[in-house]
Amino acid sequence: MAQGTVTEKIIERHLVEGELKPGTPIAIKIDQTLTQDATGTMAYLEFEAIGIDRVRTELSVSYVDHNLLQTDFRNADDHRFLQSIAARFGIHFSRPGNGICHQVHLERFARPGKTLLGSDSHTPTAGGCGMLAIGAGGMDVALAMAGQPFHLRMPEVVGIHLTGKLSPWVSAKDVILELLRRLSVKGGIGKVMEYFGPGVKTLSVPDRAAIANLGTELGATSTVFPSDEITLKFLKAQKREDQWEELISEPDAQYSEVIEIDLSTLEPMAACPSSPDNVVKVKELEGKPVAQVIVGSCANSSFRDIQVVSKALHGKFIHQDVSFEINPGSRQVLEMAEKEGLLRDLIHAGARIHQSGCLGCIGMGQAPPTDAISLRTFTRNFPGRSGTKPDQVYLVSPETAVASAIHGKITDPRSLGEAPELVEPDEYIINDSGIIPPPEDGSKVEIVRGPNIKPLPQFDPLPEDLELEVILKVGDNITTDHIMPAGSKILPLRSNCPAISEYCYSAVDADFAKRAKTGGPWVVIGGENYGQGSSREHAALAPRYLGVRAKLVKGFARIHKANLINFGIIPLVLKDPNDYDHLEQGMKLSIKGIRSALLEGKDEIEILLDNGKTVQAVMELSDRDRDILVKGGLLNWVKEKVQSSTE
Amino acid sequence: MAQGTVTEKIIERHLVEGELKPGTPIAIKIDQTLTQDATGTMAYLEFEAIGIDRVRTELSVSYVDHNLLQTDFRNADDHRFLQSIAARFGIHFSRPGNGICHQVHLERFARPGKTLLGSDSHTPTAGGCGMLAIGAGGMDVALAMAGQPFHLRMPEVVGIHLTGKLSPWVSAKDVILELLRRLSVKGGIGKVMEYFGPGVKTLSVPDRAAIANLGTELGATSTVFPSDEITLKFLKAQKREDQWEELISEPDAQYSEVIEIDLSTLEPMAACPSSPDNVVKVKELEGKPVAQVIVGSCANSSFRDIQVVSKALHGKFIHQDVSFEINPGSRQVLEMAEKEGLLRDLIHAGARIHQSGCLGCIGMGQAPPTDAISLRTFTRNFPGRSGTKPDQVYLVSPETAVASAIHGKITDPRSLGEAPELVEPDEYIINDSGIIPPPEDGSKVEIVRGPNIKPLPQFDPLPEDLELEVILKVGDNITTDHIMPAGSKILPLRSNCPAISEYCYSAVDADFAKRAKTGGPWVVIGGENYGQGSSREHAALAPRYLGVRAKLVKGFARIHKANLINFGIIPLVLKDPNDYDHLEQGMKLSIKGIRSALLEGKDEIEILLDNGKTVQAVMELSDRDRDILVKGGLLNWVKEKVQSSTE
Repeated sequence: MAQGTVTEKIIERHLVEGELKPGTPIAIKIDQTLTQDATGTMAYLEFEAIGIDRVRTELSVSYVDHNLLQTDFRNADDHRFLQSIAARFGIHFSRPGNGICHQVHLERFARPGKTLLGSDSHTPTAGGCGMLAIGAGGMDVALAMAGQPFHLRMPEVVGIHLTGKLSPWVSAKDVILELLRRLSVKGGIGKVMEYFGPGVKTLSVPDRAAIANLGTELGATSTVFPSDEITLKFLKAQKREDQWEELISEPDAQYSEVIEIDLSTLEPMAACPSSPDNVVKVKELEGKPVAQVIVGSCANSSFRDIQVVSKALHGKFIHQDVSFEINPGSRQVLEMAEKEGLLRDLIHAGARIHQSGCLGCIGMGQAPPTDAISLRTFTRNFPGRSGTKPDQVYLVSPETAVASAIHGKITDPRSLGEAPELVEPDEYIINDSGIIPPPEDGSKVEIVRGPNIKPLPQFDPLPEDLELEVILKVGDNITTDHIMPAGSKILPLRSNCPAISEYCYSAVDADFAKRAKTGGPWVVIGGENYGQGSSREHAALAPRYLGVRAKLVKGFARIHKANLINFGIIPLVLKDPNDYDHLEQGMKLSIKGIRSALLEGKDEIEILLDNGKTVQAVMELSDRDRDILVKGGLLNWVKEKVQSSTE
Repeated sequence: MAQGTVTEKIIERHLVEGELKPGTPIAIKIDQTLTQDATGTMAYLEFEAIGIDRVRTELSVSYVDHNLLQTDFRNADDHRFLQSIAARFGIHFSRPGNGICHQVHLERFARPGKTLLGSDSHTPTAGGCGMLAIGAGGMDVALAMAGQPFHLRMPEVVGIHLTGKLSPWVSAKDVILELLRRLSVKGGIGKVMEYFGPGVKTLSVPDRAAIANLGTELGATSTVFPSDEITLKFLKAQKREDQWEELISEPDAQYSEVIEIDLSTLEPMAACPSSPDNVVKVKELEGKPVAQVIVGSCANSSFRDIQVVSKALHGKFIHQDVSFEINPGSRQVLEMAEKEGLLRDLIHAGARIHQSGCLGCIGMGQAPPTDAISLRTFTRNFPGRSGTKPDQVYLVSPETAVASAIHGKITDPRSLGEAPELVEPDEYIINDSGIIPPPEDGSKVEIVRGPNIKPLPQFDPLPEDLELEVILKVGDNITTDHIMPAGSKILPLRSNCPAISEYCYSAVDADFAKRAKTGGPWVVIGGENYGQGSSREHAALAPRYLGVRAKLVKGFARIHKANLINFGIIPLVLKDPNDYDHLEQGMKLSIKGIRSALLEGKDEIEILLDNGKTVQAVMELSDRDRDILVKGGLLNWVKEKVQSSTE
């Protein structure tokens, strides 16, 4: 029974399994999906492996925005692959240079009351338009495209009660930076942040989207704004008013907690190096010399943001010690900026204007100089993410960015004098030539695969007995970066399982991949908190590809355990942690009847070591998990499910 | 005595040594220098090592245009280094994003009758404005900045006699492609290509510059156009009419040969993969599918070029299978394009618009997909230069580029119908905020050095006797790529001699650098045509840094021999090539009295091998070469010269 929040209303409409009880498992129908190119190649390989002919969502869009530098053949090959596989399976394709997925999706596709699953952590941006938008792994998105519901735990709904109105030179970015200051990067875990109250009406949809975007940095499942007359105005300006519906919380809506923000009291804020929640007032930082300023990323690259920057620059020049970079969020933003004469002031003042895309935000170019301050309107400032190891990245609003670019040092924008008047267009320029709709019948489209794009490997179902050898024994707190490193060398291999697997565990054992190919099946022994860190699914895919069938550890990190199940690796926990000491690399382990044990719902299993000892392992798994493991992984499982639902 | 060509007139004015006799050594005064960032860091380290306080040219400009991607700290650090060292030594600094050196230099600094030396092979672009502009190594440019004359052999002056007028949709690029078709990439070696005749008047300065630019692909020393009323119009539009002077060839000027081109007979041309002289008519290629089209580079990125592309695109869209990229040549071009409404059509049609710079032309981004056709308005299409190994790069005019981008296949632009009317502006927008002039007194400027920028090593003068060990023996036709590889991994190390030296000879001997550090001094044994290929000076610097004092080979390539002398490595040629067989890695060689022999002008010297045998080596060296070698290299030599001239 919905408690009257917008979040609950949307979930209730889409609920397939479970009930609206915070913390309990639910499954919801997904209306729309989005992918970007860095995660999309694998997501579409996974979708392809499921074996259905066309996506089963209302709308699926494949964006190219991350890897636009094209320093070798791989980026361009990925773009061609994504374009062709989109046409093949009924997916819209947004071309390289057309814009950042979240900005373009907001402009052209976001719909109040609908659900969106995206293989990018900032997917909640579309929550600015009154939809429930959630970031997830590529496999989850592939399943959603196949018409499968998305499984999650029912979030708590936190109410953010906005009153007042932002002062001149203070903007949406400052609202969410203030919230990060208060709540920290863990403050939103397991929660949806829902905004309400009179202050919401003072924020345009792009403002709301900027706030929803950085809700991800709170760790929130999503951020949701109501759909009101402000939303209607935006959709009208995008010639999509037919897609509007009103969606607001009930007067008696029950939030798990309510946070008060009086917008009129906020000041320009900045997240200092090197965490988005290391937030102070800009005036506390004034005077620090700045070497680089970037306006862009899915957080702050809307027409509104480019507008305030351009107008603040009118008649001024960028300071000669500052490299000032602009990444317009989309072609629409760029076209609007040209039409309204905003590009003129940007170019004249000395801005370096880049094609629309993510670029510097994900360390793909525009790395700052060593030890120098870079001010960015971005989402994250983790150490080294900029591409420069000893970096000094501050996250700020476009207003603070431009003020600092003019003065060559961190500057409170309120010192620029009267704030420019910002115009929200009644009509945006609608030019969808950068978004290629799929043909009615894609069955004859040939998928273009460059040499770096390899089909997903096929994985066997689980046998009744497992005879395993210990290939590696590691300690506590192993991260997914240890298991499958990232970085500019390895990232381009994400669509190439054989090639990326060469780097598997390379951070802890340079010979792992080589040794793995000499035999198997294998088991890895680990300590506490095994698999913490990034959610990357390649940290499960690559070991499975190399023959790892089980991991036996003191304890698993939650997301990695889920990924192991998805790729058919059995997550076993030592019942007695002291048994860890009895296990060594090279040892043979025998697990009899594992298949039956899983099917019968057993929680424990005995493992026989080659020295005659036995250890007990615990299997904390849902029925769905067990079913997936027995079938050899989620892909096999869903294939069967989808095929039986088609028959 | 000048023979009446423009080239000779300019040389005569600047002649410091020698006479105007083709093929004989001359030295000329250099009025202006330019550098770009990829070669500039080393050139300025060299200049700094000379030890004078301020450049002694009329004008020196340091441009940043090559390395704009900034995938890590090194590019941005280089930019800061270049900016600070420019201020320190009296050099103008053109900021990253301000444009391609040759385009900006043409707009703001090129001057009829003057000489320009640039550390970039396309420096002759400024010849479009009636100046003698020559590309050279960084050390040569450093010397020119120190006020030293530039040494070269007096070129032959080839007259290109232009008649008629280009047809619609045919442009300057087609003229030079036609010349490449006729003469090949070796056709201009030792020559200056000088244009004259009535057809010259039909070409604007940007047209002339496009032709002069690709003269480099003929192997020419330079290309020179007259300075006439067309030049005056251009300089007026750049608010520099005070810098104009008339400079035309005499009616009886004597050219070493005359080549006739009737402009009215030319058609759209294309250089096919993978050489700029592999030229055919575009209509012979029509219909081939195209994946990428790029308009940009120092060859074709002027306002005129952007104008024709934009006007051709008006009301049309880029084909959905084509990625269409624009690199405007300069901020002026971008500003003009914005002002004239040309950006609007480009953006609307779907172009990916990049910051002003070289970018894809030097493989810094925009690599095309595997095995797909990329049409580029660039200068070179050597295999793999695009960043993609199996590439298919065609060099074309902007007209052919845009026609093909619209149709998704190679298209003769004449099929687009009536050609747009092109306007040459009476006034360009003058905005020099991107060019920072040096302070009057730079002596207190602190030079900013990131961790990748290391001072040049100091080299000892030559001792009287050399006791050398053979560190390496290689065969015939070793290239400078073997000695010092390039590529995106090694290029960023060009300002870091210790780091780049780790890759010295790595293409033929992975352990070379490691072994070199265990002892020395060393000698390398080589075969015929040793050191052919690229002119890079690091192929001499790095071996010298690692302790190589002599190279003993069957024969040297010309430029590498000059570089060896510049870095104090003695180039010895085996008198009897059969002695090559007696020399082995690990052997000890003793050369007694080498210093005296050089000073005394001896042409031969005896080398004693550790097996008791002797071999005779030939030293074909000028007096200047000998002096440089004795002092330990050009830098030591010039330091002494400059200091004595200051006292």
